[in-house]
Amino acid sequence: MSLVVMKFGGTSVADPEKIRRVTERVIKTKKAGNQVVVVVSAPGDTTDNLLSFARQITNNPDPRELDLLLSTGEQVSIALVSMAIKSRGYEAISLTGPQAGIYADTSYTRAKITKIEPKKILEELRKGRIVIVAGFQGLNPYEEITTLGRGGSDLTAVALAAVLKARICQIYTDVEGVYTADPRIVPRARKLDCISYDEMLELAGSGAQVLQARAVEVAKKFDVPLEVRSTFSESRGTLVKGGEKIMKLEEALVSGVSYDKNQVKLSITDVPDRPGIAAKIFGALAKENINVDMIIQSAARDKNNDISFTVTRDDLKKCLPILKKVRNELGASEVIYDDKVAKISLIGVGMKTHPGVAAKMFRTLAEEKINIEMISTSEIKISCVIKENEIGKAVKVLHSVFELEKKSA
Amino acid sequence: MSLVVMKFGGTSVADPEKIRRVTERVIKTKKAGNQVVVVVSAPGDTTDNLLSFARQITNNPDPRELDLLLSTGEQVSIALVSMAIKSRGYEAISLTGPQAGIYADTSYTRAKITKIEPKKILEELRKGRIVIVAGFQGLNPYEEITTLGRGGSDLTAVALAAVLKARICQIYTDVEGVYTADPRIVPRARKLDCISYDEMLELAGSGAQVLQARAVEVAKKFDVPLEVRSTFSESRGTLVKGGEKIMKLEEALVSGVSYDKNQVKLSITDVPDRPGIAAKIFGALAKENINVDMIIQSAARDKNNDISFTVTRDDLKKCLPILKKVRNELGASEVIYDDKVAKISLIGVGMKTHPGVAAKMFRTLAEEKINIEMISTSEIKISCVIKENEIGKAVKVLHSVFELEKKSA
Repeated sequence: MSLVVMKFGGTSVADPEKIRRVTERVIKTKKAGNQVVVVVSAPGDTTDNLLSFARQITNNPDPRELDLLLSTGEQVSIALVSMAIKSRGYEAISLTGPQAGIYADTSYTRAKITKIEPKKILEELRKGRIVIVAGFQGLNPYEEITTLGRGGSDLTAVALAAVLKARICQIYTDVEGVYTADPRIVPRARKLDCISYDEMLELAGSGAQVLQARAVEVAKKFDVPLEVRSTFSESRGTLVKGGEKIMKLEEALVSGVSYDKNQVKLSITDVPDRPGIAAKIFGALAKENINVDMIIQSAARDKNNDISFTVTRDDLKKCLPILKKVRNELGASEVIYDDKVAKISLIGVGMKTHPGVAAKMFRTLAEEKINIEMISTSEIKISCVIKENEIGKAVKVLHSVFELEKKSA
Repeated sequence: MSLVVMKFGGTSVADPEKIRRVTERVIKTKKAGNQVVVVVSAPGDTTDNLLSFARQITNNPDPRELDLLLSTGEQVSIALVSMAIKSRGYEAISLTGPQAGIYADTSYTRAKITKIEPKKILEELRKGRIVIVAGFQGLNPYEEITTLGRGGSDLTAVALAAVLKARICQIYTDVEGVYTADPRIVPRARKLDCISYDEMLELAGSGAQVLQARAVEVAKKFDVPLEVRSTFSESRGTLVKGGEKIMKLEEALVSGVSYDKNQVKLSITDVPDRPGIAAKIFGALAKENINVDMIIQSAARDKNNDISFTVTRDDLKKCLPILKKVRNELGASEVIYDDKVAKISLIGVGMKTHPGVAAKMFRTLAEEKINIEMISTSEIKISCVIKENEIGKAVKVLHSVFELEKKSA
């Protein structure tokens, strides 16, 4: 019997009516002869509301307590979805992350899944039940509940699909699939039928909210086919799968443009130019679990450099004291930051053999008088940091210049 | 070192400002040199909101899923209170019911505590930490979360106080203590300084919301001194403790009047008059965990009786199919109910040696033209079922006739 993992985001379980729609989808998949594992996020704004409640109590909530708090959101969803399915006459059971055998490491609020022991899930599936698992959470070695960071429910779904050898992992959301750009900014943005893991990874990493980057990594590693589709419509979504099979040389160079406003640019000025400096700065940040994205070291003036890099805005508060300490140790001048920046990225497997793409991107932005503050490139992505208020214009013009609204042959 | 259990109800943790006040109280008790265990309920209307969400999905939510859902409310509270205490520089840790070693039986939504293994709590107290425990929940033999029924957080607090041999169990609420009547109905109602376990038990059992009856039973059994007091004022509350020591013959016969609107009167008519009938009816209800309160069997007409009794309105829906089945088996005529009734009770240890109290109560109600539909008495309580819309008048007149506004000598 084939097994399907169906993941529903927070907007899909925000109210009783939407939960009923989710229920119908799940039952349909079950009736088609599949074993079904459902993964759900917290309803609607629950997680943000809980976070805001905590922040009203203290600026610096204890991470263990924060995880105990936030994990309630998914627990609410699984109980509601399970009772909805049972009320329709189908057998179902809800499991929290710990009950489902999802184990995680010790970093609260952004733990990594260390292993999954699906014994309980398999038992319940054998009884013919639909199993509903809380996304975003696991049990750490101290036997405490921990959460997996933003978008962690995607990760739960993909990891379960990998371990259970699911035929497909479906990610249900409030959009119809993966688009060439954010349709709210570019009305002519086109839904992609297919995209490779690598492209999806770059899209996710560069701000497209549709799938969590770590989830795509795991899907790639275990070759789990993903489908991103809408909870509220019957139309086909976007299939995410192995790259080489689906991309052809003839296809468009660029498959999408994405942006990320959750960025802040930090600089340490007048850093002495000697070996080990970067290791010192970024080692200190890594120790506190802060992900650094783009890094630029300016050309030497005398013997000193400026080092600039970006982190998410959520991490800014944690960064500043660490950087000030490092600055003092290094004898650098200043730590400055700019949180009015955003990152814009072009993604495409085709890009890597066509060096003209980057030049065209920079030229287009220049013609629009948009200043580029930082640049970073990978084999299939080019990202630029620009002023936040110019993002809309930049996305629109790049989408148009690279003709993303046209379907490739 | 003496240990204090402090229990805070939902209104005390309804918003960040109130949580800060709870925090200050807890820290004050800690600073006075006590070990402190805090028990909290779900914030504000959380439990009712979750219940209503579930009922919008199905009229008959699965009880296991309902408990998983409802237990999130207390989990939210403990995390918030713990992070508030830590942000003030004191060591604290929050524990869910299962983490705290609270074990319960298998009846979902109204489980009984079977045992408490306080190993983890004691460990954390030894480290000097304030321990915050989720009320209302425990782990059942299937390793599932279960809840303890309405007011279950009181039970958690008292049971913990008993097991941990606490010096006192303080119940913090939004009123100043236990009153001679509901102050919203009788403005002259007086706060009692002291009340016996037995009187408190009858008050709780007859509708006073201030303490859960089962919690008072446990307090009496293990001789745990209780104090009911306000979260938001410094004034002394009401002490609940062993009876004989505090009540004197000279004191008032009646210590309070209470009422309960959550009542419905059920009758089965024309029940054959033969042995075993009552056992059949009430056995069937007990099997479904439905508590029956007052029972009246009318005088025999021919060979048939009418049997009437009261249950809470929440249980009505569960009762009706059971009673209809029993009626068919017994060959009785009808199952009828009236949910526009309420129960009014006079409570007082002094009462038992003064038979005139009941007569005075009935006479007073008669003078007000209030019809009494059912009567039940215990050693220290007289309860009458009357029409719901006459409750306010009845409470006021009895409070006045028995001079409850006057302090006893």
